[in-house]
Amino acid sequence: MATAAVQVPSHNRLEPGSNQLKPATYPATNDPPKADVHKIASEWAASLNEALSSQDYENIKQLFLQGSCWRDQLALSWDYHTFNGPEKIISFLRSSPHGSRIKSISIDDSSTLHSPHVSAADFDGKVNGVGSFLKIETDVGKGPGIVRLLQDQQDGGSWKAFTLFTTMHELKGHEETVRGNRPHGVAHGGKPGRKNWQERRTATENFDGDMEPTVLILGAGQGGLTSAARLHQLGVPTLIIDRNPRVGDNWRNRYHQLVLHDPVWYDHLPYVPFPSHWPIFTPKDKLAEWFESYAKLLELNVWTQTNLESASWDGSKRQWTVNLERKKADGTIEKRTLHPRHVIQATGHSGEMSFPQIKGMEDFKGDRLCHSSQFKGANSDSKGKKAIVVGCCNSGHDIAQDFYEHGYDVTVVQRSSTYVMSSKEGLDVLLAGLYEEGGPDTEDADLMFMSIPNAMLKRMHVDATKEIARRDADLLAGLQKAGFKLDNGPDDAGFFMKYFQRGGGYYIDVGASQLIIDGKIKVKQGQEIMEVKPHGLLFADGSELEADEIVFATGYLNMRGTARKIFGDDIADQVNDVWGFDEEGELRTMWRRTGHPGFWFFGGNLALCRYFSRMLALQIKALDAGIMKYEDP
Amino acid sequence: MATAAVQVPSHNRLEPGSNQLKPATYPATNDPPKADVHKIASEWAASLNEALSSQDYENIKQLFLQGSCWRDQLALSWDYHTFNGPEKIISFLRSSPHGSRIKSISIDDSSTLHSPHVSAADFDGKVNGVGSFLKIETDVGKGPGIVRLLQDQQDGGSWKAFTLFTTMHELKGHEETVRGNRPHGVAHGGKPGRKNWQERRTATENFDGDMEPTVLILGAGQGGLTSAARLHQLGVPTLIIDRNPRVGDNWRNRYHQLVLHDPVWYDHLPYVPFPSHWPIFTPKDKLAEWFESYAKLLELNVWTQTNLESASWDGSKRQWTVNLERKKADGTIEKRTLHPRHVIQATGHSGEMSFPQIKGMEDFKGDRLCHSSQFKGANSDSKGKKAIVVGCCNSGHDIAQDFYEHGYDVTVVQRSSTYVMSSKEGLDVLLAGLYEEGGPDTEDADLMFMSIPNAMLKRMHVDATKEIARRDADLLAGLQKAGFKLDNGPDDAGFFMKYFQRGGGYYIDVGASQLIIDGKIKVKQGQEIMEVKPHGLLFADGSELEADEIVFATGYLNMRGTARKIFGDDIADQVNDVWGFDEEGELRTMWRRTGHPGFWFFGGNLALCRYFSRMLALQIKALDAGIMKYEDP
Repeated sequence: MATAAVQVPSHNRLEPGSNQLKPATYPATNDPPKADVHKIASEWAASLNEALSSQDYENIKQLFLQGSCWRDQLALSWDYHTFNGPEKIISFLRSSPHGSRIKSISIDDSSTLHSPHVSAADFDGKVNGVGSFLKIETDVGKGPGIVRLLQDQQDGGSWKAFTLFTTMHELKGHEETVRGNRPHGVAHGGKPGRKNWQERRTATENFDGDMEPTVLILGAGQGGLTSAARLHQLGVPTLIIDRNPRVGDNWRNRYHQLVLHDPVWYDHLPYVPFPSHWPIFTPKDKLAEWFESYAKLLELNVWTQTNLESASWDGSKRQWTVNLERKKADGTIEKRTLHPRHVIQATGHSGEMSFPQIKGMEDFKGDRLCHSSQFKGANSDSKGKKAIVVGCCNSGHDIAQDFYEHGYDVTVVQRSSTYVMSSKEGLDVLLAGLYEEGGPDTEDADLMFMSIPNAMLKRMHVDATKEIARRDADLLAGLQKAGFKLDNGPDDAGFFMKYFQRGGGYYIDVGASQLIIDGKIKVKQGQEIMEVKPHGLLFADGSELEADEIVFATGYLNMRGTARKIFGDDIADQVNDVWGFDEEGELRTMWRRTGHPGFWFFGGNLALCRYFSRMLALQIKALDAGIMKYEDP
Repeated sequence: MATAAVQVPSHNRLEPGSNQLKPATYPATNDPPKADVHKIASEWAASLNEALSSQDYENIKQLFLQGSCWRDQLALSWDYHTFNGPEKIISFLRSSPHGSRIKSISIDDSSTLHSPHVSAADFDGKVNGVGSFLKIETDVGKGPGIVRLLQDQQDGGSWKAFTLFTTMHELKGHEETVRGNRPHGVAHGGKPGRKNWQERRTATENFDGDMEPTVLILGAGQGGLTSAARLHQLGVPTLIIDRNPRVGDNWRNRYHQLVLHDPVWYDHLPYVPFPSHWPIFTPKDKLAEWFESYAKLLELNVWTQTNLESASWDGSKRQWTVNLERKKADGTIEKRTLHPRHVIQATGHSGEMSFPQIKGMEDFKGDRLCHSSQFKGANSDSKGKKAIVVGCCNSGHDIAQDFYEHGYDVTVVQRSSTYVMSSKEGLDVLLAGLYEEGGPDTEDADLMFMSIPNAMLKRMHVDATKEIARRDADLLAGLQKAGFKLDNGPDDAGFFMKYFQRGGGYYIDVGASQLIIDGKIKVKQGQEIMEVKPHGLLFADGSELEADEIVFATGYLNMRGTARKIFGDDIADQVNDVWGFDEEGELRTMWRRTGHPGFWFFGGNLALCRYFSRMLALQIKALDAGIMKYEDP
């Protein structure tokens, strides 16, 4: 740690090898249009529909502004793309073996929210145009889309797309078993030898007899559960394995005071939304109970206390051979060999903690030295003891607050800088109009969010971050006065971009900032740790801090490292790096093909898992049904 | 059983002492109105609002048709009433110490479904008028209503109410903790000694220290769970006790093939609706899992393996003293004495089985003789054995079908007659427009259903029952040919009225009828059982039937009998009879004051529990908060 070369300033640090996406620029400002927005959107959609079906690339080009983006998820290809500008758009369409895939595209008039309406493309509401949800049908599927149209001042004020978002929600002929397609639940009539639901359920869960899962998922957190739920609804036999005794233990085992920092409206899982009485911020054990119920109610097949002993890939058969050891309820170990066609690594970031090795660590004589993932909570009989928390992001702050509440003398070590926003103001600004009480349906909110290509989101969030800072001015000033170093995130784009580009580096304030301002939590700023002493830490400036307990809230390593540990070099070498943006501004390798057939990464917060679980399940179902080939573009 | 004097024909049999409600009659038929329905409804509501606030009884009378009903649940009084005709309406309003309680009543324009619309008052759509949802505010609460207006041909075609339904959904100042009023979930800021959610939850569930439940509920079935859920959202500390080891065992322990006969759209519980993937008909073990999750997710306090050892009522303190024995997870027994102010008996019908004592029963030498509630399923190694099922309602048919599927030679004994409708046609007709895929929100559907006073519902169901019989013609003819005796329910009003007035006497066909038609299940019709022989049954006509197994699917006794068994004569003598209609056509004693302060009955199918749990919780909350007095009208 003391030797880490910090060349890029902390706020702009990225996942290694990923692209530092530049924020987009806006076209000229425009007042809200007074013309017939329904006509504008319908005509634009009809023109695109016509141009696509006649492969009239020149006309397609005319329907997009310079500086516009077409973002697509699985409608145009079996991947995620953002095409920047008309040239890149038609270049892709020309080269695609499937053409555009799109058979029809039209405006969606099914509700006030969906129908054409006045819509701003920027955060401040100065760049106005027309927005509309779209209905899309491709050669293989159906899905929604969203377009934002602005007037092209260089082309006589004609209406052109500034952003177009297209996606696929269902494969034709393989629709989910929900609503009108739900199971009947009872086989009417007298069928001799009929098993009841419980008997069938138990046999399925255990993969009795010759049953084999098509998909094996490692980890029963939000990633494993949501992807299993989607696959189940598409009729793909799926098994989740987890090392813990109970579903939800990955949350139960975390620190005592942990409560989700995202609000309930943003956190819904697929199919079973949180009910109306659910608290805004879910405590960890309550989330664990939800997960446990979720697995049962969705009839997910989960083997707890199960380890993956070995896994090998047969490239010619396109299937895995995995050896599992499952501890049964009676304490015996069952060994099983299965042959899934897909393995999803949904072990979360917490598989591999980032725990720096520092000189003297093993000789620490205090009560505890551990990583935040190992921290079970401050002790109630340790009043007056000295605690140090290394790391100033969400976990570090929560743990410092826990120490303070238990009467410790606590110091946080902040080596670089942190993006801080208050939970209230930050979430109010960032989630407004999308994820809030009385807001749109979650599925609509997700589409509205996804419909903004990341370069444009980054640009909007520069303004949003300014607005949050304005509202949080007193808090931020107080922190700086207390010696806490703040930043504004990558290119000043704040919270979301830190999350997407780096996976950390922020604190959503739920109280610890005021404790820092009040001096109740002390700050050691800007110094690397040189050595762990028997009773404290020695810093680069020669100063020392005493400690009875030291917690390293230093985050987690890249998921690819976990893949290497579980599956070995042979597999991991074929897999691409995960997280951070690619050149188009899409997140790398996550929820999409990884470079190794039949191997997938799945992770993210609850919202990302909710959304991308559908995308992943559709890819696997399409492969499984022969609609997609692994080598397809 | 052999001595039971059957004077009333089976189809008209009632809960003893209850009122054989006469079906209503309709006014003249009318084509759908062409006038402005919004204006018609608004003007009528404004007139009623004005007349109520000025206590102008003559004008109120003018706003109701002869033969109309005003049905009210807790808005006008702390009880359930149906006032038949203008005279009874104003007679009640004149005599009520609170006046009408209603401070304002107006049409609800919040959605297409709620707004004034053309609406038929009859089943066939020949008696047309204007319907609208209403918004009501009383001196203490708020709630919705529904009015159906028809033209009075005796009064120049002026628009008058044919049915008015008013109810209360919330007590002002005591709103439920849902949606905008949901809990925050985290106490921001550093609070020394702060407990986390799990610690608080465990303490609450155990009623640690001095904590006392305000309400004690006996039974963790749908009645106990739904009423606890509603009370919890109103902030009333509530404890459910149940004798079984796990929540849901009351369903798990029932017969092997049991699947709900009502469809999912009708079965939703409050706050946590069944998700979109849920099967139409829920198997018993799946329902049990739902119940178990429901209790956890709503944070209901349930003590399983707990018995009520004794209970006494202190009339002056208005509180109970109850002694409980709770078996803990470690096998030890904890004795607790608690002092709730209310006890809700939600033991279901299954507390006391109706198991006739017949000569020779104890000398039966076959493999099994039991009540349907004790029947765990046919044996898989008993092919060719002879089984008799006594009783031809839902359970009897399901059990006979189970025997058939396991290769038994099975006969059902039908002593009187049964109302039969196929699940598909019956539910299609009876639940159409209310509880179906893509139908109204469940809360709206419930209001639409409740808004029809029972005499009018009975009239509509005479026609509905005819329509179902028309669709089921082949099935019914086949049954009659097979010697199975059919009826059409009380006053030919079919299924719902049999359920309301008698609590049984019907079969919703899910396959067994065809087995009867095909002779795969035999029928012994019209004969009482004289004696149980060592290897069969002897009937009144002198015939005998051999049997290795005999199951009495003979239903359950009145809940008041269970009250007597649990609480003794002193309490039971003060309690009124349960189920069946009172003189106004409202169900007796259930979900409303029972005659004994602090003692309540709660039961019914999932739909009734969903709906009336709110009503019961509001009464208890109003008593608890001093808004209502037990002696209030």
